[in-house]
Amino acid sequence: MDGKSSSNTAGKPIRCRAVIARKPREPLVIEEVIVAAPKPREVRIKIICTSLCHSDINYWKLERSPAIFPRILGHEAIGVVESVGEGVHEVVEGDTVIPMFLPDCGECADCLSKKSNLCSKYPFHCTPWVGRDETSRFTDMNGETLYHFLFVSSFSEYTVVEVARVIKVDPAIPANRGCLLSCGVSTGVGAAWKAANVETGTTVAIFGLGAIGLAVAEGARLCGAKRIIGVDVNQDKFEIGKKFGVTDFVNPRNIGDKTVSQVIIEMTDGGADYCFECVGLTSLVHEAYAASRKGWGKTVILGVDQPEAMLTLSSFEVLHSGKSIMGSLFGGLKPKSDIPVLIKRCMDKELQLDAFVTHEVEFEDINKAFDLLLQGKSIRCVIWMKE
Amino acid sequence: MDGKSSSNTAGKPIRCRAVIARKPREPLVIEEVIVAAPKPREVRIKIICTSLCHSDINYWKLERSPAIFPRILGHEAIGVVESVGEGVHEVVEGDTVIPMFLPDCGECADCLSKKSNLCSKYPFHCTPWVGRDETSRFTDMNGETLYHFLFVSSFSEYTVVEVARVIKVDPAIPANRGCLLSCGVSTGVGAAWKAANVETGTTVAIFGLGAIGLAVAEGARLCGAKRIIGVDVNQDKFEIGKKFGVTDFVNPRNIGDKTVSQVIIEMTDGGADYCFECVGLTSLVHEAYAASRKGWGKTVILGVDQPEAMLTLSSFEVLHSGKSIMGSLFGGLKPKSDIPVLIKRCMDKELQLDAFVTHEVEFEDINKAFDLLLQGKSIRCVIWMKE
Ligand SMILES: [Zn+2]
Ligand SMILES: [Zn+2]
Ligand SMILES: [Zn+2]
Ligand SMILES: [Zn+2]
Repeated sequence: MDGKSSSNTAGKPIRCRAVIARKPREPLVIEEVIVAAPKPREVRIKIICTSLCHSDINYWKLERSPAIFPRILGHEAIGVVESVGEGVHEVVEGDTVIPMFLPDCGECADCLSKKSNLCSKYPFHCTPWVGRDETSRFTDMNGETLYHFLFVSSFSEYTVVEVARVIKVDPAIPANRGCLLSCGVSTGVGAAWKAANVETGTTVAIFGLGAIGLAVAEGARLCGAKRIIGVDVNQDKFEIGKKFGVTDFVNPRNIGDKTVSQVIIEMTDGGADYCFECVGLTSLVHEAYAASRKGWGKTVILGVDQPEAMLTLSSFEVLHSGKSIMGSLFGGLKPKSDIPVLIKRCMDKELQLDAFVTHEVEFEDINKAFDLLLQGKSIRCVIWMKE
Repeated sequence: MDGKSSSNTAGKPIRCRAVIARKPREPLVIEEVIVAAPKPREVRIKIICTSLCHSDINYWKLERSPAIFPRILGHEAIGVVESVGEGVHEVVEGDTVIPMFLPDCGECADCLSKKSNLCSKYPFHCTPWVGRDETSRFTDMNGETLYHFLFVSSFSEYTVVEVARVIKVDPAIPANRGCLLSCGVSTGVGAAWKAANVETGTTVAIFGLGAIGLAVAEGARLCGAKRIIGVDVNQDKFEIGKKFGVTDFVNPRNIGDKTVSQVIIEMTDGGADYCFECVGLTSLVHEAYAASRKGWGKTVILGVDQPEAMLTLSSFEVLHSGKSIMGSLFGGLKPKSDIPVLIKRCMDKELQLDAFVTHEVEFEDINKAFDLLLQGKSIRCVIWMKE
C-alpha cells in the first residue's frame, strides 16, 4: 500500500457510486453520491464486498418510522481504510476492516468488562446518522442528505463509520467470508459460543433455521454439541441444516396434536440443554423454554419480536425449574476481541462459512440479491463492488 | 456409639413425643406417637434439634389443600441415625445427619450432573407421605395416621426419612448451627454462591431481608461482594442486615416518587451485578430485573409467589439488555455434596451462622417459637429435644 496514493482523496469528499433506497419497496438504483471526509474519530472505508441481511430488507419495506428515506442500506461488509479522521489511531489507511453496527469503544465499563457487549458510551439506538455526531456523510447529486443505516451503510463504494465500530482484521480472510461476520452469522455463532457457552456432548434445539439459526447450528457444532435439533415449518431446511451440523429435525406441521416442546422432551429424554429462539415470536420463546431441560436448561432469545411483545412465564415454574432465560445482542460477542477470533477460526477451517454464501452478484445486480432473499432462495448473497 | 444399644429399637416401632398440628392455626400440643421402623431405603433419625421456618408456619395456617391434618411439621433439623431400613449403605446407626426436603439420589442424570439439583428419581412434589412409598410412618395413640411434612417431619423425637434425603455430616458441627443448613439459610447462601456465582468485588441487591435474604447477604459476603444493598420496608432490617454483610439499605417507603430500581441504578451507576428476589412477589421480580446491570445483570428468584402468578417481561428488553433471569430451588445446592462444604466453612468460621439464631427453646415451648416468628421477632428459633 502506497501511503501517498491516499493524499488524492484524504480530507476531501469522494464522488462514488451507491445504492439509494428512495422509497419503501421500490427497486434500488445505483446513483452517484458524495461521501464527505471522516470527522474526528471516524473512518472512511472503501467497501470490497457486502452481504444482504434481513434487516436491510425489513427497513427497505418499512413505511413508517423508524424507517426513513432516502437512505443507503447495507450493514454486513468488509473493506479497506481509505482515510481516517482526527484522533484515529486504531487503524490506518490500507487496513482491512469490518464495519459493525455494534460499537466497542474500548473505554467504558461495558467495553472493559468481559461480560458485556453493550457499550455505554455509544448506546445502541436506531438513528439515521453516522453516529454520535448526528449528521450524515452522504449527499446525492442534488445536494440532498442521504441517511445512514445501522451506522454502516455499506451499499456504497465508500462509507464513513465511527472508529468505535471499525474492526481491524487479518487481510488474508477471503472478503466474501469476512463480510458475513459483521452481523447475522456472528450473531448465531456467538449465541452458541459466548451467550450460551454450549458445552461438548450436549443437546441443542434451534427454533427457526434461517441464516441466524443455521449459524447457531454451526456455532454449536464448533462447540462440540452432540445433537443439534432444528425446528422449522419448511421441511427443506433439514437438508440445508445438515451442512451446518443439524442432526435432527422437527417440523411443527408434522407432529399432530403434540407441541414442539413435547416432541423435543421425548426425543431428548427430558429436554434440550440449550434452546435458541431465532424467529422472533414470543410464543416460540415459551416453547423453547418449555423444551429446555429442567435443572440446567438455558434459553437464549435471538429473534426480534414486535417491540410491544411480552414474555409471560409462570413465576412458579421459573422458580422450580432451575432453568434460565437470557437475551443476546450480536450473540454476546465483543466486536473488537471476538471477531478476530472468528476470522482466525475461519481461516483455520474450523468455522465453516462456505455454505452460508449461496449466491454472489455484482453491485449492479443488487436487486437480484433482494429478490433471492425475499423468495427465501438465498441464505447469504454477497454483493461485490467493482475494483 | 455402641452398636448393640440399637438392637433395643431397630426394626421395631418407637413410642416417643411429637408435636402434632391437628387443626389450622390451633396451638400445638405434644403427644405420644408411634414411629414405625424404616422400610427399605429409609432411615429412622433421633432428632437433636430443629429450627422453625416460614414454611412450617404457612402449612400450619393453611386451611385448604395442599394443607392436610393431623400432621407433624418441621423440616430444618439435625439428628443421629437410630436405625436404617433394608438396603441402606450410605449411613449407619450413630451417624450425625441432616434430613432434607430435597432429595439427592446419586443415581439419576440430575444428581449425577454438577448443574442440576432437581432429582428425577424423586421428583419434588408436596406429598403428605414419607416419600416414594406413599404411606406414613406416624400414628397417634388412637391408631390414627399422622401425615409427614416435606419428607422430614422433624417436630418429633424420632422421624423416618428416605436415605436419598439424608446427609451425613461432621458430628463436630454444633447442632444448633447445623440444623439451619437444611432449608432457608442454605437456600440463601447457596443462591449467592451456587445459583448466581457472585464474583469478588461485585454489587448485590437483595429484595426482602427475611432469613433467606439475610442468608443471601451472608453468602454474598462470603463470595467477596463489595457492596450488598438490602431492600426492605422495615427500617430495622438495616441494623440487622449489617451483621450479615449488608452495606447499604433502600426502604421503598422512603424514596418518594422513585422506584426501587431507579434508586439502585443511581446508587450503583447502572445497576446491581446480581439481584435476588426473596419475598415472593412477581412485581418485585420486575423491580429486581430492572435494577440489574445491563450487559451482565443476573436476577435470581428465590421467593415463592402464588402458583398462578405470572412473570411478564418485555421480550424486546430481554433481547437487548443482555440480562438473565433464573429460578433457584434450595439455592442451586446439591444436598449431598454442598451441605458438607457449608458445614466445613461454618466450622472454619468463614460462614457465620451465629446471628441467625436469635432464640432457642425447649421442645415443650414450641408454641413460643411459633409466636416469635409470627411476630417477626426471630430470624431462627432453635427447638431442642430433650436428651
Ligand atoms: Zn464502550
Ligand atoms: Zn443484519
Ligand atoms: Zn436423583
Ligand atoms: Zn424451610
